[in-house]
Amino acid sequence: MKNEVFVGEGMKYVKEDFPDIYEAIVKLNNAVYSGKVLDYKTQKLIAIGIAASTGDEKATKKQMKSGMAELGITKEEICDVLRVVLLTSGMPAFTKAIKILYEL
Amino acid sequence: MKNEVFVGEGMKYVKEDFPDIYEAIVKLNNAVYSGKVLDYKTQKLIAIGIAASTGDEKATKKQMKSGMAELGITKEEICDVLRVVLLTSGMPAFTKAIKILYEL
Amino acid sequence: MKNEVFVGEGMKYVKEDFPDIYEAIVKLNNAVYSGKVLDYKTQKLIAIGIAASTGDEKATKKQMKSGMAELGITKEEICDVLRVVLLTSGMPAFTKAIKILYEL
Amino acid sequence: MKNEVFVGEGMKYVKEDFPDIYEAIVKLNNAVYSGKVLDYKTQKLIAIGIAASTGDEKATKKQMKSGMAELGITKEEICDVLRVVLLTSGMPAFTKAIKILYEL
Amino acid sequence: MKNEVFVGEGMKYVKEDFPDIYEAIVKLNNAVYSGKVLDYKTQKLIAIGIAASTGDEKATKKQMKSGMAELGITKEEICDVLRVVLLTSGMPAFTKAIKILYEL
Amino acid sequence: MKNEVFVGEGMKYVKEDFPDIYEAIVKLNNAVYSGKVLDYKTQKLIAIGIAASTGDEKATKKQMKSGMAELGITKEEICDVLRVVLLTSGMPAFTKAIKILYEL
Repeated sequence: MKNEVFVGEGMKYVKEDFPDIYEAIVKLNNAVYSGKVLDYKTQKLIAIGIAASTGDEKATKKQMKSGMAELGITKEEICDVLRVVLLTSGMPAFTKAIKILYEL
Repeated sequence: MKNEVFVGEGMKYVKEDFPDIYEAIVKLNNAVYSGKVLDYKTQKLIAIGIAASTGDEKATKKQMKSGMAELGITKEEICDVLRVVLLTSGMPAFTKAIKILYEL
Repeated sequence: MKNEVFVGEGMKYVKEDFPDIYEAIVKLNNAVYSGKVLDYKTQKLIAIGIAASTGDEKATKKQMKSGMAELGITKEEICDVLRVVLLTSGMPAFTKAIKILYEL
Repeated sequence: MKNEVFVGEGMKYVKEDFPDIYEAIVKLNNAVYSGKVLDYKTQKLIAIGIAASTGDEKATKKQMKSGMAELGITKEEICDVLRVVLLTSGMPAFTKAIKILYEL
Repeated sequence: MKNEVFVGEGMKYVKEDFPDIYEAIVKLNNAVYSGKVLDYKTQKLIAIGIAASTGDEKATKKQMKSGMAELGITKEEICDVLRVVLLTSGMPAFTKAIKILYEL
Repeated sequence: MKNEVFVGEGMKYVKEDFPDIYEAIVKLNNAVYSGKVLDYKTQKLIAIGIAASTGDEKATKKQMKSGMAELGITKEEICDVLRVVLLTSGMPAFTKAIKILYEL
């Protein structure tokens, strides 16, 4: 369920060629997404917001897609995340993320 | 309740000297924090995550403080936000935000 | 004239589905580009410089194109903007923006 | 006149201990601020906008101060620069720069 | 020897209150600094360059200090790192890091 | 040997149309990559790390390619650089750079 970060192409290579790094990332990922008080969905919404605020198209798309597929996050919920991105990170980051969202 | 962004020192000057900008920001802030499906607390947690991921100490402190004061967000909840920051933005952003959190 | 930020694909979706956000952005955009002492062209040159300094190709292209189409900003003027980007933001941001400029 | 970047403390050390780097920076600085079509003041306004958009307090303060001292740039002109920062880079960068401006 | 990231104040709190995160970070840190072909000193020089290029004063200072104390990295070596920062990330990042280096 | 930054498409235009900028960049580039104590290969590894940490795909690809072609830097060495990127800059920057490395 929480393994979406490992299925990207980059991680496939890491798993094969650098198993020590792969294992450390699995452990870190598990620790990160085992929040004690916030549920996984809320943490995922935060990850979407952070990715969008940096203007990183690939990371934003990946986070949105896995959030929708795994956790049933809706377009409306992501738009509410992007409202925060607009205020904190400006128009270019916001419009870029909106476009990604509508073209998923 | 949702007016915390306006009480910083910067905004005080804007309100006095540039009322057109001030009004536009008030309108934007209201639109941003009137998410249709996510509640204000979830949006605030996202804002904390974005601020921490950029490594901006002032913005991080301000968001944490107003989130705790206005919405009763706990230290544990913020730590679960920062777990996501660790994975997406690296150690320096994470340790900086943890230090701010514990010195509030 | 000052509406270029609204014609991108992202904003088209926002206008239809999130009119409250759209209205707030229109108001903000008008307040921003109604500087009291600097003219619109100077503000546009600043927007080009900021976009280029972040290395954001889409935003840089959009700002350059609208500046040239709406305000008659020339290639030489944009190059003078990019000189500042070179000094403040380094070679990768500069060469990326130069390439965008010459391929417009 | 255009030598403001060299008077910071960092550059003093470079001049003494690494003259090859110092000379290269002088040459670069001269090339940058010898725009063919934009005047120095416009380039300085762009530099202020870029510094403020990154949220870098020291660079923002330095650029504002030298722009005011050397070129007679006014508080109102800088505020018109910061309007663009608000739209392109979000509230935290904007309020931080406004506060710096009013405390100069 | 490679434990410098854990002695900062932020990590002290994490160790006590969030041992799962602490353990994951220790494991990650060990995997990162166990490069197969590059030695630890070269990796440390890279870490200094990355910290300086982001303009993060705290992280830059921390990396420089631990590199000097643990690995005997010299001021001249760090200056050669900062030459790369100047070219890739611009003057403000460079001068900020030079100043930190000379005030250590 | 150290001229890789000049062969990109952006620089071709600069050389033709803005020879003053071109000359200043050549001089800067020479000063940067004439470190007194670190060799060129180590500086190149640092440049790869900085490019990858910003998430800039073009710059990352360019630095990796020229490092491999000119200096015989290996995939394993670059992976050791990227280990540092993972710790300092987070997962998205790391996986993006790994993917670029494996698709070169």
